[in-house]
Amino acid sequence: MSKIIFDSGISLDGFLAGDHRSPANPMGDNGPSMHKWMYKQKAFWKNINMEGHGEEDGPDGKLINDVFARTGAYIMGKRMFEEGEVHWKEDLYKADVYVLTHEKREPWIQKGTTAFYFINDGIQSALEKAKQSAKGKDIRIQGGANTIQQFLHAGLIDEFFIHIAPIFLGSGIRLFEGMDKSMYDVQIMEVIPSDLTTHIRYKLTKKP
Amino acid sequence: MSKIIFDSGISLDGFLAGDHRSPANPMGDNGPSMHKWMYKQKAFWKNINMEGHGEEDGPDGKLINDVFARTGAYIMGKRMFEEGEVHWKEDLYKADVYVLTHEKREPWIQKGTTAFYFINDGIQSALEKAKQSAKGKDIRIQGGANTIQQFLHAGLIDEFFIHIAPIFLGSGIRLFEGMDKSMYDVQIMEVIPSDLTTHIRYKLTKKP
Repeated sequence: MSKIIFDSGISLDGFLAGDHRSPANPMGDNGPSMHKWMYKQKAFWKNINMEGHGEEDGPDGKLINDVFARTGAYIMGKRMFEEGEVHWKEDLYKADVYVLTHEKREPWIQKGTTAFYFINDGIQSALEKAKQSAKGKDIRIQGGANTIQQFLHAGLIDEFFIHIAPIFLGSGIRLFEGMDKSMYDVQIMEVIPSDLTTHIRYKLTKKP
Repeated sequence: MSKIIFDSGISLDGFLAGDHRSPANPMGDNGPSMHKWMYKQKAFWKNINMEGHGEEDGPDGKLINDVFARTGAYIMGKRMFEEGEVHWKEDLYKADVYVLTHEKREPWIQKGTTAFYFINDGIQSALEKAKQSAKGKDIRIQGGANTIQQFLHAGLIDEFFIHIAPIFLGSGIRLFEGMDKSMYDVQIMEVIPSDLTTHIRYKLTKKP
Protein backbone atom coordinates (compact mmCIF):
# COMPACT_ATOMS: atom_id res chain seq x y z
CA MET A 1 0.00 0.00 0.00
CA SER A 2 1.24 3.47 -0.82
CA LYS A 3 2.69 5.46 2.04
CA ILE A 4 2.30 9.21 2.13
CA ILE A 5 5.67 10.81 2.72
CA PHE A 6 7.52 14.09 2.57
CA ASP A 7 11.20 14.94 2.48
CA SER A 8 12.39 18.42 3.43
CA GLY A 9 15.54 20.29 4.22
CA ILE A 10 15.16 22.60 7.20
CA SER A 11 17.39 25.02 9.06
CA LEU A 12 18.42 24.48 12.65
CA ASP A 13 15.72 26.94 13.66
CA GLY A 14 13.07 25.00 11.74
CA PHE A 15 12.61 27.00 8.54
CA LEU A 16 11.90 25.32 5.22
CA ALA A 17 12.40 28.55 3.30
CA GLY A 18 13.73 32.00 4.04
CA ASP A 19 12.07 35.37 3.58
CA HIS A 20 11.15 36.92 0.22
CA ARG A 21 10.30 33.69 -1.53
CA SER A 22 9.30 34.15 -5.15
CA PRO A 23 9.68 32.36 -8.50
CA ALA A 24 13.02 34.19 -8.86
CA ASN A 25 14.10 33.26 -5.31
CA PRO A 26 12.41 29.89 -4.77
CA MET A 27 13.80 28.98 -1.35
CA GLY A 28 13.86 32.51 -0.02
CA ASP A 29 16.84 34.42 1.35
CA ASN A 30 19.64 32.02 2.36
CA GLY A 31 17.33 29.08 1.56
CA PRO A 32 19.71 27.40 -0.91
CA SER A 33 22.48 27.32 1.71
CA MET A 34 20.44 24.64 3.52
CA HIS A 35 20.80 22.31 0.56
CA LYS A 36 24.58 22.44 0.09
CA TRP A 37 24.87 18.75 0.98
CA MET A 38 22.44 17.94 -1.84
CA TYR A 39 24.18 19.95 -4.53
CA LYS A 40 27.32 17.87 -3.87
CA GLN A 41 25.54 14.61 -4.65
CA LYS A 42 25.82 13.04 -8.10
CA ALA A 43 22.47 11.36 -7.39
CA PHE A 44 20.71 14.70 -7.02
CA TRP A 45 21.80 15.98 -10.42
CA LYS A 46 21.15 12.65 -12.09
CA ASN A 47 17.61 12.56 -10.76
CA ILE A 48 16.85 16.05 -12.04
CA ASN A 49 18.16 15.16 -15.49
CA MET A 50 21.46 16.98 -15.15
CA GLU A 51 23.78 14.02 -14.84
CA GLY A 52 27.48 14.89 -14.69
CA HIS A 53 27.27 17.47 -11.90
CA GLY A 54 28.11 16.75 -8.28
CA GLU A 55 31.12 15.15 -6.69
CA GLU A 56 29.92 12.69 -4.02
CA ASP A 57 28.40 9.26 -4.32
CA GLY A 58 27.94 7.92 -0.78
CA PRO A 59 25.18 7.47 1.82
CA ASP A 60 23.74 10.96 1.17
CA GLY A 61 23.34 10.13 -2.50
CA LYS A 62 21.83 6.74 -1.76
CA LEU A 63 19.18 8.49 0.31
CA ILE A 64 18.28 10.73 -2.63
CA ASN A 65 18.08 7.76 -4.99
CA ASP A 66 15.95 5.80 -2.52
CA VAL A 67 13.40 8.58 -2.12
CA PHE A 68 13.10 9.06 -5.89
CA ALA A 69 12.81 5.29 -6.40
CA ARG A 70 10.06 4.72 -3.85
CA THR A 71 7.89 7.60 -5.08
CA GLY A 72 5.15 6.84 -7.60
CA ALA A 73 3.27 10.15 -7.60
CA TYR A 74 3.71 13.69 -6.29
CA ILE A 75 1.44 16.30 -4.79
CA MET A 76 2.48 19.94 -4.56
CA GLY A 77 1.11 23.39 -3.93
CA LYS A 78 0.54 26.00 -6.55
CA ARG A 79 3.37 28.26 -5.41
CA MET A 80 5.89 25.45 -5.59
CA PHE A 81 4.67 24.54 -9.03
CA GLU A 82 4.93 28.13 -10.24
CA GLU A 83 8.39 28.53 -8.77
CA GLY A 84 9.49 25.24 -10.26
CA GLU A 85 7.94 25.80 -13.67
CA VAL A 86 10.53 28.53 -14.21
CA HIS A 87 13.51 26.41 -13.23
CA TRP A 88 12.82 22.73 -13.81
CA LYS A 89 14.01 20.73 -16.75
CA GLU A 90 11.45 18.84 -18.82
CA ASP A 91 10.38 15.46 -17.45
CA LEU A 92 11.78 16.15 -13.99
CA TYR A 93 9.43 14.00 -11.96
CA LYS A 94 8.97 11.02 -14.28
CA ALA A 95 5.59 10.43 -12.65
CA ASP A 96 2.18 12.05 -12.27
CA VAL A 97 2.22 15.28 -10.29
CA TYR A 98 -0.95 16.71 -8.75
CA VAL A 99 -0.91 20.47 -8.22
CA LEU A 100 -3.32 21.95 -5.66
CA THR A 101 -4.66 25.18 -7.13
CA HIS A 102 -7.80 27.23 -7.63
CA GLU A 103 -6.86 27.74 -11.24
CA LYS A 104 -8.64 25.62 -13.85
CA ARG A 105 -6.02 24.34 -16.24
CA GLU A 106 -5.65 21.45 -18.68
CA PRO A 107 -3.12 18.76 -17.74
CA TRP A 108 0.39 19.50 -18.91
CA ILE A 109 1.90 16.33 -20.32
CA GLN A 110 5.61 16.69 -20.78
CA LYS A 111 7.88 14.74 -23.07
CA GLY A 112 8.81 11.59 -21.23
CA THR A 113 6.73 10.42 -18.27
CA THR A 114 5.94 13.58 -16.30
CA ALA A 115 2.37 14.86 -16.29
CA PHE A 116 1.02 17.74 -14.19
CA TYR A 117 -2.65 17.64 -13.23
CA PHE A 118 -4.34 20.64 -11.65
CA ILE A 119 -6.66 19.82 -8.76
CA ASN A 120 -9.29 22.32 -7.65
CA ASP A 121 -11.13 20.34 -4.98
CA GLY A 122 -8.67 19.80 -2.15
CA ILE A 123 -6.16 17.38 -0.74
CA GLN A 124 -8.41 14.29 -0.49
CA SER A 125 -9.22 14.50 -4.16
CA ALA A 126 -5.53 14.91 -5.04
CA LEU A 127 -4.69 11.97 -2.81
CA GLU A 128 -7.17 9.60 -4.43
CA LYS A 129 -5.87 10.42 -7.88
CA ALA A 130 -2.26 10.16 -6.71
CA LYS A 131 -2.97 6.70 -5.28
CA GLN A 132 -4.18 5.55 -8.70
CA SER A 133 -1.06 6.96 -10.32
CA ALA A 134 1.37 5.55 -7.76
CA LYS A 135 0.40 1.92 -8.32
CA GLY A 136 1.49 0.86 -4.85
CA LYS A 137 4.59 3.03 -4.74
CA ASP A 138 4.63 5.96 -2.32
CA ILE A 139 3.09 9.38 -2.68
CA ARG A 140 5.40 12.24 -1.94
CA ILE A 141 4.02 15.54 -0.73
CA GLN A 142 6.62 17.63 -2.47
CA GLY A 143 5.91 20.98 -0.80
CA GLY A 144 5.83 23.81 0.01
CA ALA A 145 5.35 24.11 3.73
CA ASN A 146 1.67 24.96 3.50
CA THR A 147 0.87 21.86 1.45
CA ILE A 148 2.89 19.60 3.73
CA GLN A 149 1.10 21.14 6.71
CA GLN A 150 -2.31 20.47 5.20
CA PHE A 151 -1.45 16.77 5.02
CA LEU A 152 0.24 16.72 8.43
CA HIS A 153 -2.68 18.45 10.12
CA ALA A 154 -5.15 16.08 8.47
CA GLY A 155 -3.33 13.11 10.02
CA LEU A 156 -2.36 11.73 6.62
CA ILE A 157 1.46 11.52 6.73
CA ASP A 158 2.98 8.06 7.29
CA GLU A 159 6.65 8.83 7.14
CA PHE A 160 9.00 11.73 6.54
CA PHE A 161 12.64 12.67 6.15
CA ILE A 162 14.12 15.89 7.43
CA HIS A 163 17.61 17.10 6.64
CA ILE A 164 18.64 19.53 9.36
CA ALA A 165 21.20 21.98 8.01
CA PRO A 166 23.68 23.65 10.36
CA ILE A 167 22.49 27.14 9.59
CA PHE A 168 20.09 29.63 11.13
CA LEU A 169 17.64 31.46 8.90
CA GLY A 170 16.11 33.62 11.63
CA SER A 171 12.83 34.08 9.78
CA GLY A 172 10.87 32.66 6.89
CA ILE A 173 8.43 29.77 6.59
CA ARG A 174 8.55 27.12 9.30
CA LEU A 175 7.97 23.49 8.35
CA PHE A 176 6.19 22.45 11.57
CA GLU A 177 3.65 25.10 12.44
CA GLY A 178 0.51 24.56 14.48
CA MET A 179 0.99 20.82 15.02
CA ASP A 180 -1.64 19.05 17.11
CA LYS A 181 0.43 17.54 19.93
CA SER A 182 -1.91 14.59 20.42
CA MET A 183 -2.42 13.55 16.81
CA TYR A 184 0.56 11.30 16.11
CA ASP A 185 2.86 8.81 17.74
CA VAL A 186 6.28 9.58 16.30
CA GLN A 187 9.09 7.08 15.97
CA ILE A 188 12.70 7.66 14.94
CA MET A 189 13.44 5.15 12.16
CA GLU A 190 16.88 6.13 10.93
CA VAL A 191 19.55 8.76 11.55
CA ILE A 192 22.24 9.34 8.94
CA PRO A 193 24.93 11.75 10.10
CA SER A 194 26.72 13.81 7.48
CA ASP A 195 29.00 16.86 7.28
CA LEU A 196 26.57 19.44 5.98
CA THR A 197 23.25 18.13 7.28
CA THR A 198 21.73 15.50 9.55
CA HIS A 199 19.24 13.16 7.90
CA ILE A 200 16.50 11.75 10.10
CA ARG A 201 13.61 9.53 9.03
CA TYR A 202 10.49 9.41 11.20
CA LYS A 203 7.42 7.20 11.15
CA LEU A 204 4.07 8.71 12.13
CA THR A 205 1.16 6.69 13.45
CA LYS A 206 -2.12 8.48 13.87
CA LYS A 207 -3.47 7.97 17.37
CA PRO A 208 -6.90 6.35 17.55
CA MET B 1 39.91 28.53 28.07
CA SER B 2 36.32 28.09 29.17
CA LYS B 3 33.80 27.49 26.44
CA ILE B 4 30.27 28.78 26.77
CA ILE B 5 27.82 25.99 26.08
CA PHE B 6 24.22 24.99 26.42
CA ASP B 7 22.46 21.64 26.29
CA SER B 8 18.73 21.44 25.62
CA GLY B 9 16.06 18.94 24.77
CA ILE B 10 13.70 20.18 22.09
CA SER B 11 10.65 18.84 20.33
CA LEU B 12 10.62 18.10 16.62
CA ASP B 13 8.84 21.40 16.10
CA GLY B 14 11.53 23.26 18.02
CA PHE B 15 10.00 23.87 21.43
CA LEU B 16 12.07 23.80 24.60
CA ALA B 17 8.99 23.89 26.82
CA GLY B 18 5.26 23.53 26.35
CA ASP B 19 2.46 25.90 27.29
CA HIS B 20 1.47 26.80 30.86
CA ARG B 21 4.96 26.66 32.32
CA SER B 22 5.05 27.35 36.05
CA PRO B 23 6.95 26.19 39.14
CA ALA B 24 4.39 23.38 39.44
CA ASN B 25 4.71 22.49 35.73
CA PRO B 26 8.34 23.36 34.97
CA MET B 27 8.59 22.16 31.37
CA GLY B 28 5.06 23.11 30.42
CA ASP B 29 2.36 20.84 29.02
CA ASN B 30 3.87 17.66 27.54
CA GLY B 31 7.35 19.09 28.20
CA PRO B 32 8.58 16.13 30.28
CA SER B 33 7.75 13.71 27.44
CA MET B 34 10.69 15.21 25.53
CA HIS B 35 13.09 13.98 28.19
CA LYS B 36 12.05 10.32 28.37
CA TRP B 37 15.47 9.22 27.07
CA MET B 38 17.09 11.08 29.98
CA TYR B 39 14.94 9.61 32.72
CA LYS B 40 16.10 6.14 31.58
CA GLN B 41 19.76 6.97 32.15
CA LYS B 42 21.49 5.96 35.37
CA ALA B 43 23.90 8.84 34.77
CA PHE B 44 21.09 11.41 34.89
CA TRP B 45 19.85 10.29 38.31
CA LYS B 46 23.38 9.94 39.67
CA ASN B 47 24.25 13.48 38.63
CA ILE B 48 21.18 14.91 40.33
CA ASN B 49 21.99 13.07 43.56
CA MET B 50 19.37 10.35 43.16
CA GLU B 51 21.63 7.42 42.34
CA GLY B 52 19.84 4.10 41.95
CA HIS B 53 17.16 5.23 39.51
CA GLY B 54 17.33 4.63 35.77
CA GLU B 55 17.99 1.50 33.76
CA GLU B 56 20.43 2.35 30.96
CA ASP B 57 24.16 2.93 31.01
CA GLY B 58 25.26 3.43 27.39
CA PRO B 59 26.17 6.27 24.99
CA ASP B 60 23.24 8.43 26.15
CA GLY B 61 24.44 8.22 29.72
CA LYS B 62 28.03 8.94 28.74
CA LEU B 63 26.84 12.14 27.09
CA ILE B 64 25.15 13.24 30.33
CA ASN B 65 28.27 12.46 32.36
CA ASP B 66 30.49 14.29 29.88
CA VAL B 67 28.43 17.47 30.00
CA PHE B 68 28.34 17.49 33.80
CA ALA B 69 32.09 16.79 33.93
CA ARG B 70 33.13 19.58 31.58
CA THR B 71 31.01 22.23 33.28
CA GLY B 72 32.63 24.41 35.94
CA ALA B 73 29.91 27.03 36.42
CA TYR B 74 26.29 27.62 35.47
CA ILE B 75 24.22 30.62 34.46
CA MET B 76 20.44 30.53 34.53
CA GLY B 77 17.40 32.74 34.37
CA LYS B 78 15.24 33.67 37.30
CA ARG B 79 12.25 31.61 36.18
CA MET B 80 14.33 28.48 35.84
CA PHE B 81 15.80 29.07 39.27
CA GLU B 82 12.37 29.56 40.83
CA GLU B 83 10.99 26.47 39.13
CA GLY B 84 14.01 24.45 40.17
CA GLU B 85 14.14 25.72 43.73
CA VAL B 86 10.91 23.83 44.36
CA HIS B 87 12.11 20.54 42.90
CA TRP B 88 15.88 20.24 43.14
CA LYS B 89 17.76 18.28 45.76
CA GLU B 90 20.39 20.10 47.80
CA ASP B 91 23.81 20.46 46.18
CA LEU B 92 22.51 19.64 42.71
CA TYR B 93 25.02 21.59 40.65
CA LYS B 94 28.19 21.06 42.67
CA ALA B 95 29.47 24.35 41.27
CA ASP B 96 28.75 28.07 41.36
CA VAL B 97 25.46 29.02 39.73
CA TYR B 98 24.75 32.60 38.61
CA VAL B 99 21.08 33.54 38.49
CA LEU B 100 20.05 36.49 36.32
CA THR B 101 17.40 38.41 38.23
CA HIS B 102 16.25 41.90 39.20
CA GLU B 103 15.83 40.71 42.75
CA LYS B 104 18.55 41.62 45.26
CA ARG B 105 19.31 38.54 47.28
CA GLU B 106 22.20 37.23 49.36
CA PRO B 107 24.09 34.24 47.93
CA TRP B 108 22.57 30.90 48.87
CA ILE B 109 25.37 28.53 49.81
CA GLN B 110 24.12 24.98 50.01
CA LYS B 111 25.63 22.11 51.89
CA GLY B 112 28.28 20.58 49.63
CA THR B 113 29.66 22.63 46.75
CA THR B 114 26.67 24.38 45.20
CA ALA B 115 26.32 28.15 45.62
CA PHE B 116 23.72 30.37 43.96
CA TYR B 117 24.67 34.00 43.30
CA PHE B 118 22.08 36.52 42.19
CA ILE B 119 23.21 38.85 39.43
CA ASN B 120 21.38 42.12 38.82
CA ASP B 121 23.53 43.69 36.11
CA GLY B 122 23.19 41.49 33.04
CA ILE B 123 24.78 38.63 31.18
CA GLN B 124 28.30 40.06 30.79
CA SER B 125 28.61 40.50 34.51
CA ALA B 126 27.35 36.96 35.12
CA LEU B 127 29.79 35.68 32.54
CA GLU B 128 32.82 37.32 34.10
CA LYS B 129 31.99 35.89 37.49
CA ALA B 130 31.23 32.47 36.02
CA LYS B 131 34.63 32.47 34.30
CA GLN B 132 36.32 32.99 37.65
CA SER B 133 34.31 30.15 39.15
CA ALA B 134 34.83 27.73 36.25
CA LYS B 135 38.65 27.73 36.52
CA GLY B 136 39.10 26.77 32.88
CA LYS B 137 36.19 24.33 32.73
CA ASP B 138 33.18 25.27 30.64
CA ILE B 139 30.30 27.56 31.50
CA ARG B 140 26.90 26.10 30.86
CA ILE B 141 23.98 28.37 30.14
CA GLN B 142 21.44 26.20 31.86
CA GLY B 143 18.25 27.88 30.63
CA GLY B 144 15.48 28.69 30.12
CA ALA B 145 15.00 29.64 26.50
CA ASN B 146 15.13 33.37 27.13
CA THR B 147 18.49 33.16 28.90
CA ILE B 148 19.98 30.92 26.22
CA GLN B 149 18.70 33.34 23.58
CA GLN B 150 20.34 36.31 25.30
CA PHE B 151 23.70 34.56 25.02
CA LEU B 152 23.04 33.28 21.49
CA HIS B 153 21.97 36.69 20.23
CA ALA B 154 25.02 38.32 21.82
CA GLY B 155 27.30 36.00 19.83
CA LEU B 156 28.65 34.37 22.98
CA ILE B 157 27.88 30.66 22.54
CA ASP B 158 30.80 28.40 21.49
CA GLU B 159 29.12 25.03 21.39
CA PHE B 160 25.79 23.41 22.11
CA PHE B 161 23.98 20.10 22.29
CA ILE B 162 20.40 19.59 21.25
CA HIS B 163 18.43 16.43 21.86
CA ILE B 164 15.60 16.31 19.34
CA ALA B 165 12.69 14.30 20.73
CA PRO B 166 10.26 12.56 18.38
CA ILE B 167 7.26 14.50 19.60
CA PHE B 168 5.35 17.57 18.54
CA LEU B 169 4.39 20.15 21.14
CA GLY B 170 2.46 22.43 18.80
CA SER B 171 2.99 25.50 20.95
CA GLY B 172 5.10 26.75 23.82
CA ILE B 173 8.53 28.36 24.00
CA ARG B 174 10.84 27.88 21.03
CA LEU B 175 14.56 27.46 21.63
CA PHE B 176 15.75 29.27 18.48
CA GLU B 177 13.76 32.45 18.12
CA GLY B 178 14.92 35.57 16.30
CA MET B 179 18.35 34.26 15.33
CA ASP B 180 20.56 36.56 13.27
CA LYS B 181 21.26 34.51 10.16
CA SER B 182 24.64 36.08 9.55
CA MET B 183 26.09 35.96 13.07
CA TYR B 184 27.55 32.46 13.27
CA ASP B 185 29.24 29.81 11.21
CA VAL B 186 27.75 26.55 12.42
CA GLN B 187 29.48 23.20 12.25
CA ILE B 188 28.08 19.74 13.06
CA MET B 189 30.54 18.13 15.48
CA GLU B 190 28.83 14.92 16.51
CA VAL B 191 25.56 13.05 15.96
CA ILE B 192 24.54 10.32 18.38
CA PRO B 193 21.43 8.42 17.27
CA SER B 194 19.21 6.93 19.94
CA ASP B 195 15.72 5.45 20.27
CA LEU B 196 13.95 8.29 22.02
CA THR B 197 15.95 11.30 20.89
CA THR B 198 18.68 12.38 18.47
CA HIS B 199 21.70 14.03 20.07
CA ILE B 200 23.58 16.57 17.96
CA ARG B 201 26.53 18.69 19.03
CA TYR B 202 27.26 21.90 17.12
CA LYS B 203 30.15 24.33 17.20
CA LEU B 204 29.49 28.02 16.66
CA THR B 205 32.06 30.47 15.38
CA LYS B 206 31.13 34.12 15.43
CA LYS B 207 31.67 35.65 12.01
CA PRO B 208 34.09 38.57 11.93
